[in-house]
This record gives sequence, structure tokens and C-alpha cells, in this order.
Amino acid sequence: MNTKPFEQYESEVRSYCRHFPTVFVKAKGAEFTDENGEKYVDFFCGAGAVNYGHNNDYIKSKLIDYLSADGILHALDMYTVPKREFIETFENKILKPRGYDYKIQFCGPTGTNANEAALKLARKVTGRQNVFAMMGAFHGMTLGSLALTTDMSSRAGAGVPLHDVTHIPAPYMFPELDTIAYMERLITDDHSGIEKPAALFIETIQAEGGIMVMSEDWLRRCREFCDKYGIVLVCDDIQVGCCRSGEFFSFERAGIKPDIVTMSKSIGGYGMPMAIALIDPKLDIWKPGEHNGTFRGNQLSFVAAKAGLEYMLEHNVEAETKRKGEIVKGYIEKEILTLDSRLELRGRGLIWGIDFEAFGDDELSERVIDACFKNKLVIEGAGRKNSVVKLMPPLVIEDELLLKGLEILKKSIVECL
Amino acid sequence: MNTKPFEQYESEVRSYCRHFPTVFVKAKGAEFTDENGEKYVDFFCGAGAVNYGHNNDYIKSKLIDYLSADGILHALDMYTVPKREFIETFENKILKPRGYDYKIQFCGPTGTNANEAALKLARKVTGRQNVFAMMGAFHGMTLGSLALTTDMSSRAGAGVPLHDVTHIPAPYMFPELDTIAYMERLITDDHSGIEKPAALFIETIQAEGGIMVMSEDWLRRCREFCDKYGIVLVCDDIQVGCCRSGEFFSFERAGIKPDIVTMSKSIGGYGMPMAIALIDPKLDIWKPGEHNGTFRGNQLSFVAAKAGLEYMLEHNVEAETKRKGEIVKGYIEKEILTLDSRLELRGRGLIWGIDFEAFGDDELSERVIDACFKNKLVIEGAGRKNSVVKLMPPLVIEDELLLKGLEILKKSIVECL
Amino acid sequence: MNTKPFEQYESEVRSYCRHFPTVFVKAKGAEFTDENGEKYVDFFCGAGAVNYGHNNDYIKSKLIDYLSADGILHALDMYTVPKREFIETFENKILKPRGYDYKIQFCGPTGTNANEAALKLARKVTGRQNVFAMMGAFHGMTLGSLALTTDMSSRAGAGVPLHDVTHIPAPYMFPELDTIAYMERLITDDHSGIEKPAALFIETIQAEGGIMVMSEDWLRRCREFCDKYGIVLVCDDIQVGCCRSGEFFSFERAGIKPDIVTMSKSIGGYGMPMAIALIDPKLDIWKPGEHNGTFRGNQLSFVAAKAGLEYMLEHNVEAETKRKGEIVKGYIEKEILTLDSRLELRGRGLIWGIDFEAFGDDELSERVIDACFKNKLVIEGAGRKNSVVKLMPPLVIEDELLLKGLEILKKSIVECL
Amino acid sequence: MNTKPFEQYESEVRSYCRHFPTVFVKAKGAEFTDENGEKYVDFFCGAGAVNYGHNNDYIKSKLIDYLSADGILHALDMYTVPKREFIETFENKILKPRGYDYKIQFCGPTGTNANEAALKLARKVTGRQNVFAMMGAFHGMTLGSLALTTDMSSRAGAGVPLHDVTHIPAPYMFPELDTIAYMERLITDDHSGIEKPAALFIETIQAEGGIMVMSEDWLRRCREFCDKYGIVLVCDDIQVGCCRSGEFFSFERAGIKPDIVTMSKSIGGYGMPMAIALIDPKLDIWKPGEHNGTFRGNQLSFVAAKAGLEYMLEHNVEAETKRKGEIVKGYIEKEILTLDSRLELRGRGLIWGIDFEAFGDDELSERVIDACFKNKLVIEGAGRKNSVVKLMPPLVIEDELLLKGLEILKKSIVECL
Repeated sequence: MNTKPFEQYESEVRSYCRHFPTVFVKAKGAEFTDENGEKYVDFFCGAGAVNYGHNNDYIKSKLIDYLSADGILHALDMYTVPKREFIETFENKILKPRGYDYKIQFCGPTGTNANEAALKLARKVTGRQNVFAMMGAFHGMTLGSLALTTDMSSRAGAGVPLHDVTHIPAPYMFPELDTIAYMERLITDDHSGIEKPAALFIETIQAEGGIMVMSEDWLRRCREFCDKYGIVLVCDDIQVGCCRSGEFFSFERAGIKPDIVTMSKSIGGYGMPMAIALIDPKLDIWKPGEHNGTFRGNQLSFVAAKAGLEYMLEHNVEAETKRKGEIVKGYIEKEILTLDSRLELRGRGLIWGIDFEAFGDDELSERVIDACFKNKLVIEGAGRKNSVVKLMPPLVIEDELLLKGLEILKKSIVECL
Repeated sequence: MNTKPFEQYESEVRSYCRHFPTVFVKAKGAEFTDENGEKYVDFFCGAGAVNYGHNNDYIKSKLIDYLSADGILHALDMYTVPKREFIETFENKILKPRGYDYKIQFCGPTGTNANEAALKLARKVTGRQNVFAMMGAFHGMTLGSLALTTDMSSRAGAGVPLHDVTHIPAPYMFPELDTIAYMERLITDDHSGIEKPAALFIETIQAEGGIMVMSEDWLRRCREFCDKYGIVLVCDDIQVGCCRSGEFFSFERAGIKPDIVTMSKSIGGYGMPMAIALIDPKLDIWKPGEHNGTFRGNQLSFVAAKAGLEYMLEHNVEAETKRKGEIVKGYIEKEILTLDSRLELRGRGLIWGIDFEAFGDDELSERVIDACFKNKLVIEGAGRKNSVVKLMPPLVIEDELLLKGLEILKKSIVECL
Repeated sequence: MNTKPFEQYESEVRSYCRHFPTVFVKAKGAEFTDENGEKYVDFFCGAGAVNYGHNNDYIKSKLIDYLSADGILHALDMYTVPKREFIETFENKILKPRGYDYKIQFCGPTGTNANEAALKLARKVTGRQNVFAMMGAFHGMTLGSLALTTDMSSRAGAGVPLHDVTHIPAPYMFPELDTIAYMERLITDDHSGIEKPAALFIETIQAEGGIMVMSEDWLRRCREFCDKYGIVLVCDDIQVGCCRSGEFFSFERAGIKPDIVTMSKSIGGYGMPMAIALIDPKLDIWKPGEHNGTFRGNQLSFVAAKAGLEYMLEHNVEAETKRKGEIVKGYIEKEILTLDSRLELRGRGLIWGIDFEAFGDDELSERVIDACFKNKLVIEGAGRKNSVVKLMPPLVIEDELLLKGLEILKKSIVECL
Repeated sequence: MNTKPFEQYESEVRSYCRHFPTVFVKAKGAEFTDENGEKYVDFFCGAGAVNYGHNNDYIKSKLIDYLSADGILHALDMYTVPKREFIETFENKILKPRGYDYKIQFCGPTGTNANEAALKLARKVTGRQNVFAMMGAFHGMTLGSLALTTDMSSRAGAGVPLHDVTHIPAPYMFPELDTIAYMERLITDDHSGIEKPAALFIETIQAEGGIMVMSEDWLRRCREFCDKYGIVLVCDDIQVGCCRSGEFFSFERAGIKPDIVTMSKSIGGYGMPMAIALIDPKLDIWKPGEHNGTFRGNQLSFVAAKAGLEYMLEHNVEAETKRKGEIVKGYIEKEILTLDSRLELRGRGLIWGIDFEAFGDDELSERVIDACFKNKLVIEGAGRKNSVVKLMPPLVIEDELLLKGLEILKKSIVECL
């Protein structure tokens, strides 16, 4: 297997390949095949980008049809048929049934770009500069989003101080502290030193933060806090949206409507680059072109995105995600947590984390991940000191493959303990 | 034609559709077709993203083949066959023949993301925070790149002050001022108040700045200036690279090698989202994952990118671009500039701007653009007060269609004068 | 009484005169005399600048002698006899007996300048940019110190965002939160988003914050926290130093040694402008002139400062302060708190605050202050919403005058309730 | 002579004492006396703080009288008799005869504090954040003023990036560049990347920048530029005001009225700490206390300041300054410039600089300064690489002493060449 061109010519910034030192050729559903013909179960899911499975046949056929018919491919934000069809499908099949009335902004096709758009718009709407973000958050790597992001190594890469964001302790960090009351005190105490924010950015589940699930009550109180003080509530649903947590939008379980929702990853249906911001119509005061990007109109992504939504609805992916989530939870509780009392499990839907932090061995989770790969399971780490092994299979994974992955995981943990 | 879903559900931020109020269905080469079956000549070229033509048949066949064979589609920065093949093609067919030895960083697939990467790396390498960028520059819309970008309306969208960049007068702004000597004075005068920069960002042709072509001499002196003071020279070749200016890299004409080159738009071959940073190996001190993004490994883009390079080489696109550039220049000089002495022409290769600024009528260029559209030519504005009409057809445009477009342009200008 | 020149020519920024609308002529000890010959008891003490009494006779005679002898008056940081004598007195009579070994930096003669010096030095020593400051803190009004200061109206005056400071909840704000553990978590959690600070700025008693007294235990834990993580502990002793809290340095009660101590106000002995930073010798890595200011060498201030220290020692001001503090506390507890259960008392030494916040009437404390003035007591407010009436008489006030002041205060409160 | 206490206990930040290694005891007029009884001619003048001479007898008597009578000494911004008298004198004797109608803000008694006040007010009045300052400028060492200041070593001391200021080339830096047109282009070109400023800060003579005298024409064009674009013109007259340049305000020669004038140094008459901002009444929109400081009401400074103005008027200091300036100029041109053609002279009134830069020997000016001191002349350096020897005697220096100083200077230069 020839990995030399990567080692010689690809920048040292490459990272996943270091954990998965093979060359992949094909992918289907929840399985990869490498150049040697070896198959791997996928519990990584393109960091959440292929919820409906690798190379989903339904979506694939739509893409090939569109390409074959010479449908317009690149169009910036001109009007096109695929964009219209995506909009109609998203509004009619996703938003309306849930009672939401968002307008859609098509952003440069990276999650960070959607968060940069949300930042700009919240500041424009409120005329304020400060923004609240949670400790443990990950919102992207460009300078605006990076200021929201909390992990130290990402922040250090900025090379300049990151300003205009106040980080709020996540509710799990200091259980004795009511974080909503804390935020309220910050902006009502005339001696806090903290400027009232334009926005509060939240994730309902901090994925990179270590699969930290926010409670419904806390989410509702965030909504009330923002309503009370005229603050824009932004929910970053980039990783845990698109059914990952069990519902299409991860905040549905709390019965709330954020003012802005950012989506990327699986919104592109087939792993196609795409990012959108859903905007409460009252906030849509953008001037034309005030935020833009050349690839905000990649028609192939619109085709895949629409097909992805159709597939998701047709195959009851929400319900299936919940059902499979119970399988994962049950298996881990019975077969893995029982291995050692220091193991901790957190998660929801089909995103789960097994935390090895209590072992006090910073390398343990890394060794588990490497053992998994040797045993033909692709899985990654997350969280503080990367101590969490994150299970995030495609939502459409077959039960059999899911169990196979879980068994490999168990075996690998046993090997490492 | 149904544009209602856009008006009702798409954010007010949409912009090009306002100049081109139709719904596009197909595109081929240098022509669009809308839902009514009307055809339009394309002098816009996806803002430079489809240099090898819309829906180029050669690239298309590679995409369909890859999709049909279930080649892995989404892979972050894992090793894959398409990435390997792209790397090998790019190194062997593009870089080596030109004597360059860059390493390649695959960035989130937007030009702004590549510039954010270049910013981070230059700051990391030098340990400095300040960066020099030229007045008239456009480098993107996320907060790091936006600090480099100079147009006021884009900057105003930030909602926060943009720091850590010193803007240098472009050489055309104050002809009496030697801008290289100016920069040198800034960093050698111990009372300039300007911190020595990590990097100097340049475009060889400022496209958004109004098709302002930098001289070879100036480009060489930038290189010498950076060498002399240990400053990273970053060339943003996102819009004018990929043969647009007549050579694959726009800086080749000056015989220089920037330390970092950022590319996007047409590097994706088929209008596919893709962005890369080419890095002098000495500077490649990234830590794994220090800059990342979910779609930095879109395999379809690698397939299209490789096919695009092959097509470009096979069809002598560089030479063809120069040849067609002469046609454009000759036509405009003879047929258009003669219409009014206030018209000014600037450009190179197949990027040209006709400047209406001297008319003192801020709406004139807009009217020309609207007239063009009515006459079935898609073309956009650029530059100060948007006073420049920018001609940027696909490089593979047939001579006939090129002339047709030029005639429509002439006719539209005549209508507006 | 002619106040017209002030109203006509002095900027609207003037403030105290609005509460005390008379023209003062003389001052002695703890009494003012206005142009009408009316006398006022002083519970304000020049915001802490005349601890040893207005126009203290001992100091006065030294000043007149020095002036009469044509001692050099202005000398920047050249060597002079008065500076040498101040240094020797301060080192031998103040520092050595307490076991401290600080070096002295003479700053521009404002407290804010000393804090700017401390900020610069802490950042220089550690190479870090972020700084921790407490919510409720006041450290000055120039842009560096203002970033530390927390009151909203002062901050709003900046006109630019204030950066590079993380504000930490004061221990009284969220009693359930261990603020030392909180700070520790911020810098050890790799996902807090908070950069490790160069310094922690504290006041042992937040005066402007509302006479909030930090516990000895908390102060000691701040010292341990800074030791553990290599953070510079800066104690701003500008208002509560010089015996105000009962000991010369307010932090003595906790048995700690901050790395930098900033002093101003009463260090000038006679209300003379002066400010110093006391620096742990290990941190004294300043380059000559790296922080400077024209009036850092006002010799009259050195003369007054030395005489002030001599007077203070001779008259047992520390012990007297404690004794009088008990008088104040006893009187208020017995005569004032008994007036209404909503009244709250806080303080130490001769700085006390009566908090009217629980009345929910934002104007009440202001009315009390105005009533006091009518009854010939000069006193000011502090704290959140300015709800605290702050008692801060000169430390040398006679018992009789102290009681007179307290009686006026009681009477005025009774009038307002 | 005992300098040990300084070396042992004073911070390494001390600087002038390193050039003048003696201990000063007395000062009178333009002469110092050290502990050994040696006398030194003063061409340094407390960096401009004792224009009316050291220990001026007229002012001294007023100070002693005031102290003896127990006049109130410290009063913050309460109304007092000395402040009223200063205001009346300044308005009636200085401002009205010149046709100015400024209001007076009393700032913390350092020049930098007055500039911080001006910064805040200009930003408040305009609602803008950016500020223009000139390369070569010195405006102070606290973080707001330091962002305006240009010398690298001062800026490096900040320890954080200094933001919100655009530095404009001084007119002498690029003679071919019209700096007023340059500023105009920056704010009218919609692609300059430079935000329209709240204020333009100028010095009419850059003292620290190397005795660079701005032309009357340039000053007038600054005024017109600010008028045209609604920008606040701030003139920092801290070093060259109070008659230093020949007129009381240094900008009088250009016939302009800045919107804000900052003064310190000699405004305190006797070397007493004091600083004021003169504000066009239309701009005086401060809220009470929005900028403050404990020593903004040092009554002894008001007494000295008033007496200083009286002395200045009584003794025709403006005319005398001009007359003596001619002596200095004539002497240097005839006796010193003739020594070597590489010497350059610049100046006005009684501030002159001899520039040694053309010698290409960075230490030469330092050696001259040290030789002067050995020959009993106190004088300091300024400008780029400190290559300028700055002559700034007290304005009241006797002709004889002036000549003596000039002769020492010549002799010292001869020794060093």
C-alpha cells in the first residue's frame, strides 16, 4: 500500500490518517474497504457527515442522474432548480411539520462558515459585540468561530488573542453553580465587568467537549434567558443535528426554537460539502451579499441534501436512531461498564462516549482507539485530554454490524485494560 | 418561472440572483440555460470557479465513474486513493515542471479557509501577530480573512473591530509612493508604530479590487522584501490562479515563489468545493489537526480536481487563455474604448475590467450589468464603488461565443451611455 | 458664593461637586471649611488620599521647609535626596519590620498608572497576555486598568472593547462556588477557553465594589493558587493600604506577600500626587525607561510621603485605626442597623459600608448622602447601583468628631427612611 | 555620595539617573546643584515640566503662603477657591485674548491621562473606534495612549497587541507623499480597509520623534481635513505647549483651533503634577465622573499653575522664548553645524535638536550626552535610534547661562567627533 505521496507531499497538519494508517478505497453504509480489501466497521461516520450511510444508493442515483443530465453545477447564490427543490423539501417536510418558520441562509460549505454567519448576524441585529459561549464548546476553526471554541490546542493555533467572547461554565463543570443564574448575574450586576452579549451559542450535546448532554430543563432555561434579555440564541446543530440525537433537530426534545440554527455535515446528505444557517425571519436583516462565499451554491449538494431528507423520512431514521441507541446503551452498560467501575458512559440517540478519564492515564483512550483500528473498527476520541472514546456510527447501520462494532470495541478495551 | 420559494424562504443575504432574476437549469461550457429554455453567455464563470467550463464532459465522466463504483466519498484527512492520485498529479504535472516543491494542505473547501490556514501558519512560524495586506485586497469573509479584506461593506459586517492587520497602499493608489520602500520604512523605522509582520498577503491581480494588475517588478520586489526581513509571502491565487491570468499560477510571470499559495475556486475542476494551501516545506511546522474541517476530504473534489488538471494540460489551456485574452483586449480597445474616452481597460489573460469610474455616475456600471443580462450575457461588477464591469469567461469558451459575449457587452454599454 | 466659573468653564465630567455644592477653602484634620465659614465633618477622606488628616501639621512643616530651602522639585527619575530618604524610610521602617523585600518603582502619580505598570510587568515576566481580575474590582480609568475595572459606566466610557482580561466571580457573589477551585479549573481544563493568566489582580477589600471584605482564607488561597501555577499576584492597595484596613498593608492580616503591590492615594502623605509599585526583586526585569512618566519624580511628594510614614509610626495610626473602627462598628450596629432590618453593614479598620440595596430603592443611598451634606457631613456612595454609603474618615479623626459624624449620618438616615 | 539605596531598592526601570549619575539637592532657574556642591546647566527642563524655571521664586512664595494658610490641599473635583482662580486666570488671561472658548477638564495629573481622556471623548462624540495618529508620535505610556505612541521599545512593553489606531506617515517621512491627501484617500476609498477615525492626534512639533516641526500649512490642512469629515482634531501640547515653541499654544502659529488640546508638564507651573484637557464646548458631552482620578484636584498645582501663568505674562516669556531661540539657532549654525556637514539642526522657539543620524554611529549621540554631563550640562536624547541631542532649557534661562550651556555642548561634541 502506497502511503508515500502523503508522507512526502501532504502537510504535517494531516491527523486522522495517523490513527488509521491505511488507504481507503470504497465505503458503503457503515463499512470502509481499504486498498488491501480489508473491511472496517465505521463508528466514526465522517465526524457526523454521513448519517445516512456512506454512498447511500438512493442519494447516489439522484447525483448520477443530475450529473448525467448536465444540471447546472456551480451557481453561487443564483436561482436554480435544485436549490428551489431543496428549499421546498426542507420547508415542507422538515420545518413546517415541526412548527418552525426559519429562513435559510446558504453559507460557504463548512460548519465554521455557518457559525461565522451566525456571529455576524447576531452582532448586527443587536449592535453588541460580546458573545457568550459554553466551556467545552467546539464551533469551528476560522478566527470568529475559533474564539467560541474552547479547546486549548485549537485556540493556540490562532496566533493572535481571541476576543469578544465570554466563556460560561458548562452546567456539568460546577454542579453547585446554576449556570443560568450565573449568566443572568453577569448581565444584571453593574460590576461584573461582562458586557451583555449579542448571542448565546449552545450545543445540546457537546460532542468535541466529551459527549456532554445538556438537560431539557437547561435548554429551556437558556431559551427563557435569551428571551428575557433580548439575546440571540444560536444552536450549533452541526454535529448532533440531522437525527443524530434521535430527533432531526437535537433541540426538539426540549421543545424550544433557537433564533439561529447552524447545520452542516450530514445536511449534505452524502458527505457533500454544505452548510446552512436557519434564521428566525425577524432577524433576517442581512444586506445582499453581506456574508458570502463562492461555493455557497454547489448544486450537487442541494441534490444530495434533498435526497438525504427524503431517504431519512422514508426510512424512519429518527425512530431507528432511538432504537439503535438503546442497543448501544444496553450493550455498553452490560458488557463494557462492568469491566471496570472507572468507566463512564454518556450519550443519547446514536452518539455515545465512554470516558476513561478516571483511570488517570492520558494515553489509555488513545490505545483503545488504536486497538480498535487493528481489530477493524474505525472510531475516534473526544473530550478533555481526548479521554473519551466516541461512538458515532452511521444512523443506518445494520443491527448486525452495530453489534460487531460493539464487540470489537469491548475486545479492544479488554486488551488495553 | 417559480422564484417564490427563494423570496419567501431564502435569506435576504442572497445577492447574485438579484441581478440575474431567472431560474437556471443547465450549464455547459460557457453557456447557461434557464427554466424557460433561454440561453445566456457566461462572462462570470462562477466567480472563477469553473475555468475549465461548466459541466466539462471529461471531468463529468470521471465523477460519474467514481460515484458509480462506490468510491469512498467522505474521508476527512484519512488516506484515500483519489487524494493520492490528486497529490501525485499535482506534484508531478504542475509543481515539478515549474520547479516548485510545495507541500499541500487540504483545507475546509472555501477560499477563506485556506487564507485562515495561511494566517495561522505564518503567525506560528514567525511568532509575530501583525500581518501586512494590500488596500484593495479581498481574501475572504470569515473573521481572520475578513481582517485582510478591505472593502468597507464586507468589513462592516464583522460587527467587531478587525485587528492585527496593517493595510499597505496598493502601488496604483499613490503612484508617487514606492510601496516597497514604504513597507521597508515601516519595519525599520523604530518610530513607525507598526509591528513587523508575520506575513505579506498579495494578489497578483486584485480582482475584487477592480482588476488591478501588479507589475512583475513589484511582485519581485515583494519577494525580495520578504526574504530580506524574514516575512512569509502569501499569494492568494484563489481567483486568478488555475490559468486565469495566462499561466497556471498567476505569479509565474514574475518568476517568484511565494512561501504559501492559497487556491480554491477552479482547483476543484468542476465547480466542486475544494481549497488548498501550498506550503514551502520549511514552513510546514503544523501540529496534526491544528487546523482542520470536516469537508477537507471530499473525494469527489479530488477526482474532479485531478481530471481538471489533466484536461487543462491536454487542451493547452494556458496558451489558449493568452490567445483569447488578446481577442478580448483587441475587441475592447477597438470597439468599446472608442465609444467614450472616459472608459478604462485593465486586465491580463482572461480577466479584464472596464472601469466606468470616470463617468462619476455610481449606478452606470450596474445599469450596464443589468442591460447585459437582458441581452443574455451574465457578467458582474467589481472594484471601488463597484464601478468596474468584470469580464471573466470560462477559459475554454469557444471563440464564437466569446465574440458573441463581447458584442452583447458593447451593445449594452451603448444602450447605457 | 461664586460657582459660576465652574459651571461655565469646567467640563461636565466634574462629579463630586454635584453632591457637595459649595466652595471649599480650608481643610484641617477631618474637617472642611467652605467659603461661608461653614464646617463639615469629612467621612470621605479624598477617596482615601488623606489618611493622616488634611493639612497634617507635621508633614506641612516639612513641605514648607523643603520649599523654602529650594530643594529640587522636579527631577523625573534622577537621583535626589528626598527620593533617597523616602526609599530608606520605606525600606527600613515599613518593609523590613514586616519581612518584605520589595523593590520600588516610582510611577506617574496616579493609581491607574501603577496598575498599568503592574500589568505590563506581569505580562513581560510571564510572556502571557490574559489577566484575571475580580468582578466588583476597580483598578483605574486608563485603558489597561479600565479593562480590569468592572463597573459598567466606567467601562462604557472606553469607547472600544476592553480585552485581555478574564473576570472571575468574587467570592461573595456565588457563595456556593469555590472561586479558587473555579480559577484552577479554568486553567487546568483544556476545554475552558480561558488562557492561563499572567497575573491575578486582587483588592483585599473591594471599596468601589461596595466595601466587600475578602476573607484571610481566600487571600491565602489566592497566594497558593498563584504559587502553584506561576501566576503573578498583584494586590491593588491603593484605597485600602496605608493603614486604612487596620494594618499598613491591607494584606498583612492574611500573612501573605503579593508579588506586586500598587499604592497611591495616602502614600503621598498629604494628598500629594504619588504612586508606586512594590515589586518582588525576582520580577524586576524592567528595561530602563520601559514604563515612565514626567511626574514620577515629584520631590514634594517624596518629602510628604516620608513625613507621612514618620507621623503614622509616631502616632500608632494602625492601632488607632483598629480602635476607632470598633467605635464605628459599635455605633452603627447599635444606633443605625436597629433602625431597619434591611440595612447591612460591612467593613474593617476605618472603611465601612452601610448597604441600602435591600430597600429596592435605587435613589435611597443618594438621598442619604445629600441629607448628610445638608447636615454638614461629607460622605460618598459606592458599590452596585451605588447603594452603599461608604464611611471613610481620615484615620486621625478625633473621637469626638467621629461621633459627631456618626450622629449626623444616623440623623440623615432617619430623615430619609 | 550615596547612591546605594537607589541601586538596591529602586526598580531597574529607572533611566535618567543612568545618564546623570549624581544625587541632586537643589535647583534654581536653569541650574542644578548636586550633593557635592557641583552646579549643572539644565538643557533638559524636566522634559519640559519647568518652563518657568526650577523653583521660581514668585510661584514658590504663592505655594508657601497657601500651605501656611492651611488652604485645602486635596479635593478631587469638588469646588475650591484655587481651582476657581486657576479657571478664571486661564480663561481670562490665556484663552479669551486668543479667541478660544475651551472648557477645561482636570485629569489625573499625568499627560497620558489627559490623552486617555481625549481618546475616550473623541470616541464617545463620534461613536467611532479607530483613531489616526502620526508615525513619530509620543502620547504616553498607559494602554490607550501607548496605542498612539510609535516608538517600538515603549510599544513592546505593552505585552499585548495595541489596537484601534491607524498610524499615518509623518509628512517628513515620505516627502513625495501628500499625507493629507493620503488620509483623505483612506477614508473615501471604499477599499482601503481603514475605518474612518474618531480623531486625528497631532503634535505640532514631534519632540520624542526627533524635534520634527510640522509646517503651518500642514497644520491648517489637518484642521480642514478634520472639519470636512467630522473628525475630532486633538493637539497634544504637553511637551511643546506653555510657550515652549514661542507661543503659549504651539498651534497658534498656524491660526488653528484644535477640538481638544491636552496639556501637562509646565501647566503645573513649578513642576507640580497637573494635566488638563481643553475641550470645544460642543464636544463636552461627558457624563459626570465618566473619566476621573483621585489627584485631579491637587490644589497646590492649581496655585502653582495660576502663579505660573501670571509670571509668564508678566515676564513676556513668549517673546523671550523667541529671542533666545534665535540665540540658540545662531550659535549652533555658526559654531556647531560648521564642525561637520553631517550634523542637522531642527527646532523652533526653545526646543532644538541636533541630529547625528547621518554619522551612522548609533552610539554617537549617547556619547555626546555623557560628555555634556561630565562637562556639567544636563541634556537628553530623542528621536529615531535616539540620534538627536535635544536642547530644551527652561524658558527663563539667563542669556549667560544659555551661552555657557551652548559652549559646553560644542566642546562636548568636539570631544566626541
